[in-house]
Amino acid sequence: MLETIFKHRTIRKYKSTPIDDSILEEILKAGTRASTTGNAQVYSMVVTRDKELRKKLWETQFKQDMVREAPVVITFCADVNRFSKWCIHRNADPHYHNFLWFFTASIDALLASQNVALAAEANGLGICYMGPTIYMARKIIDILNLPKGVVPVATLVVGYPDEEPGLTDRLPLEGVVHYETYKDYTKEDIDRIYAEKEALEETKELLLINEKETLAQIFTDNRYKKDDNIHFSKELLQVIREQGFMGDEK
Amino acid sequence: MLETIFKHRTIRKYKSTPIDDSILEEILKAGTRASTTGNAQVYSMVVTRDKELRKKLWETQFKQDMVREAPVVITFCADVNRFSKWCIHRNADPHYHNFLWFFTASIDALLASQNVALAAEANGLGICYMGPTIYMARKIIDILNLPKGVVPVATLVVGYPDEEPGLTDRLPLEGVVHYETYKDYTKEDIDRIYAEKEALEETKELLLINEKETLAQIFTDNRYKKDDNIHFSKELLQVIREQGFMGDEK
Repeated sequence: MLETIFKHRTIRKYKSTPIDDSILEEILKAGTRASTTGNAQVYSMVVTRDKELRKKLWETQFKQDMVREAPVVITFCADVNRFSKWCIHRNADPHYHNFLWFFTASIDALLASQNVALAAEANGLGICYMGPTIYMARKIIDILNLPKGVVPVATLVVGYPDEEPGLTDRLPLEGVVHYETYKDYTKEDIDRIYAEKEALEETKELLLINEKETLAQIFTDNRYKKDDNIHFSKELLQVIREQGFMGDEK
Repeated sequence: MLETIFKHRTIRKYKSTPIDDSILEEILKAGTRASTTGNAQVYSMVVTRDKELRKKLWETQFKQDMVREAPVVITFCADVNRFSKWCIHRNADPHYHNFLWFFTASIDALLASQNVALAAEANGLGICYMGPTIYMARKIIDILNLPKGVVPVATLVVGYPDEEPGLTDRLPLEGVVHYETYKDYTKEDIDRIYAEKEALEETKELLLINEKETLAQIFTDNRYKKDDNIHFSKELLQVIREQGFMGDEK
């Protein structure tokens, strides 16, 4: 267990080797063992293996090739549709078309996704979480026929690794952990916490390639830019509304 | 790994035995190995062991006793505060005070939380995710001194189990998995998927105790009621706004 967690690396190159049904079933079952709000299981996992569909999903994921190369793409969705239908068929009056339940269902979906990721890795598979899912949710909804009450919140590609990357750096533990209550960060704290990351050879190369002074500027100017943040933020809220999750909000 | 995942049960009764610092550190480090958006690590983990603070947190968690009994409470927060401060001190212009980044940071926090939960269980500890965190976020923000840019999204209590519950039931895999695209549920699908859960002895007892016709009614009338959903949904959105995460939205 711990070895799997501490060995995790994101895999960006995959073999085309398919995943046996029995292994796939085991990792999906692992997803269902994660904690879930009131045992309501308000999530769904959409497993896409069809080549044409994966090509469509690849387009939504800013054409990052692992989505076409890996044999399996799993889309984790916040889903109150199934639960609400059950209520209706059982003479109960569901009221889950609001932001609280969008977020509740997202928590369920994300805990399940991390179990699936780890169970895949424990089986010798590699995984990659695809960031663009929440940027391109509307297109994914179209491709996967997601009904009202369902929003994709995370995508995993899964397959046999065709590379062996090293571990990625992380901030020291004191950078992300607070004891008792939150202690806000002074300039000195920030300098100390980010020192190791900023001193990496990899960081120096990035600065040269991108012609930037600081690593932070690569985040703000290149990777996660103001205009994109504004655009995709509005889009995401709009998708949540369109999928029927703002029934109690203006 | 797989054994830990498949053996997971929520623990509601704890011994007062403290957790060794070295074990606590290992499970927190396990949290940091989870995937994180662009390796930005936009989350924080607040570890609360102080008895008085845990009592205050217990009050926010609808006074569920495990929060006072277990020796450690970990609050997982969406956090763009540290990352934004780093940008500012590095001559970069952060723009992460919007809904997109609230959700991005929530994903980071939740993936980390599931790694912590599993690493705890692999060390013989028990865990319980506390549902009320997103209902009572404002009070938790006060207790833990969370600054702007930080919202609690999940709480784990962690400690040595003082009970040995069996596995909780789950829907059959076909109930939560779709192949290729989403297939919406017919009445027959719902009947089949929920049959096992509805036939459980435990369900029959719940119906008797609650004087209800169907299990779904226990969810809609007792556990997750319309008025509460409306109230807490507005509260949660308001807290997200107050913490500065709706800078680009009206």
